[in-house]
Amino acid sequence: MSEKIYIGVDLGGTAIKVGICNEEGQLLHTYEGPTEVDKGPETIVDNIERYVRLVVEQSPFNWEQVAGVGAGVAGFTNVREGIIIFAPNVGLKDFHIRQILEERLDKPVKIDNDANVAALGEAWGGAGKGIDNCVCYTLGTGVGGGIIIDGKIYQGFSGLAGELGHMSVVPDLEAIQCGCGKMGCLETVSSATGIIRMANDAVARGDRTELALVENITAKDVFDAAKVGDEVALRIVNRAAFYLGKSLAAVAVVLNPEVFIIGGGVSKAGDILFNEVRSVFAQFTPEPVQAGLRIEPATLGNDAGMVGAAGLFLRS
Amino acid sequence: MSEKIYIGVDLGGTAIKVGICNEEGQLLHTYEGPTEVDKGPETIVDNIERYVRLVVEQSPFNWEQVAGVGAGVAGFTNVREGIIIFAPNVGLKDFHIRQILEERLDKPVKIDNDANVAALGEAWGGAGKGIDNCVCYTLGTGVGGGIIIDGKIYQGFSGLAGELGHMSVVPDLEAIQCGCGKMGCLETVSSATGIIRMANDAVARGDRTELALVENITAKDVFDAAKVGDEVALRIVNRAAFYLGKSLAAVAVVLNPEVFIIGGGVSKAGDILFNEVRSVFAQFTPEPVQAGLRIEPATLGNDAGMVGAAGLFLRS
Repeated sequence: MSEKIYIGVDLGGTAIKVGICNEEGQLLHTYEGPTEVDKGPETIVDNIERYVRLVVEQSPFNWEQVAGVGAGVAGFTNVREGIIIFAPNVGLKDFHIRQILEERLDKPVKIDNDANVAALGEAWGGAGKGIDNCVCYTLGTGVGGGIIIDGKIYQGFSGLAGELGHMSVVPDLEAIQCGCGKMGCLETVSSATGIIRMANDAVARGDRTELALVENITAKDVFDAAKVGDEVALRIVNRAAFYLGKSLAAVAVVLNPEVFIIGGGVSKAGDILFNEVRSVFAQFTPEPVQAGLRIEPATLGNDAGMVGAAGLFLRS
Repeated sequence: MSEKIYIGVDLGGTAIKVGICNEEGQLLHTYEGPTEVDKGPETIVDNIERYVRLVVEQSPFNWEQVAGVGAGVAGFTNVREGIIIFAPNVGLKDFHIRQILEERLDKPVKIDNDANVAALGEAWGGAGKGIDNCVCYTLGTGVGGGIIIDGKIYQGFSGLAGELGHMSVVPDLEAIQCGCGKMGCLETVSSATGIIRMANDAVARGDRTELALVENITAKDVFDAAKVGDEVALRIVNRAAFYLGKSLAAVAVVLNPEVFIIGGGVSKAGDILFNEVRSVFAQFTPEPVQAGLRIEPATLGNDAGMVGAAGLFLRS
């Protein structure tokens, strides 16, 4: 048993997911436990260590085979220094997680933010398998992004490459302010939060829609209503898809990727979203840049974070 | 005299410019002669060979020191195969220029398109000297672009990365069709052609502007009028700057570059353009992505093509 294995840790606000990957990006074993954010940093680190050791114990592999431990964190990270700058949902700030985990586990550790590791996971073992250059969007509460160049996460000058949710795509007259302080960011219209806001606005305006009967509208409610022909819901879905498609078109002339991978909760809407995104993309992208390019749903779902975190060792 | 030198060829529709660079990207000697497009491909190749040999003969270097010859071509190129796919201004199509020049010169040859080599030139020996990651815009008849990642030209999946002039940035209601067939491309508003078109439209509409007195309006006329307070001209300049600034903001969240370099004829307008571009960029770019980022005019002018072509050997 000399095969090397890589452990990926997906550190979120509710759960810590830990998985074992082989060198081909296949997820072989997983373990999941609570983060216990309320108990503070020491407990969080205890939990990570415990789950990492447990997933190996429960597998046919042994600790010596572990070549490295990667972690994806929902928050701002300093990849080079291995520091969590700020992870509001996990309650960590200026936290030297790499050093702490390396001491506890006696294994090399690498970290990156959740959008980047999810992108790497999809590129390594998911919808982008075998593809060197791809761009991933994660449509969730916000809109995250990750750029994969030559099979690796592209960080940019200060580690902020791939902040795709903050591309300003909505024209001024229709734009609202984003959490980042700027106007018209993609995140304001194509995230779950954006879709819910547009639905609530429509109901408050008195638009005729079955969404008026729903308490606490979710993005799924909006897609479900659109699928059965609710015109207001369909207008909202098309607006989310329109600006996502325009953003893809903008990225395409910059990076000329082979594949766009769209993941996150909102992407589960399926064809009603993807058909419109592909149509808008085709409308705004020069033909030669469209040639051979694919727009695909993510395939790893919630496993992308674990796979990508494990991949930090082979592909960064 | 064992120092290696690199020869850069800037192949344009009117002139062929040939320069010698050292390994630091300094342009040491140049020669310029007519392309003679009307005499056909054989003469063009004869001229390239002649000028390349001449520039070395006229320099203190000898032929043995030439480590490689790079060429930048105004047109579509297949970098990997060394083929000019289509260069309308040079009258060449499906032309195996690399193979032909390698046989004639008995030196290794590399090619790329003019926007990419200009970007590499600025990154290597111009405004981006010492910078690994930068993005260059060339504002001329069209809008060209080049992406430099880790000091090298980034090609993308099919060699079309950095087609920045074809980012659709103008909202539908104001958009016009671009030469590429799509609506609202940056090139329709921020190129010399776009600026001239907006000026001619204003004059035709009867807007009160001193441009009405100018025959065959140039982009320089528009900038000159704007500088002395012509409101119509200023509106046009601000519109060109607005969409350029928005495009920079979009690229910034994708690539997080350290420097944007703006070159080409239109960039000579100076502060009246750059101040507005910087202001719009700041308006639409999240603060963390702005931090440390600079927007600079190109410094090599018409030499960028020669320098970048020579750089193809050290930086590709």
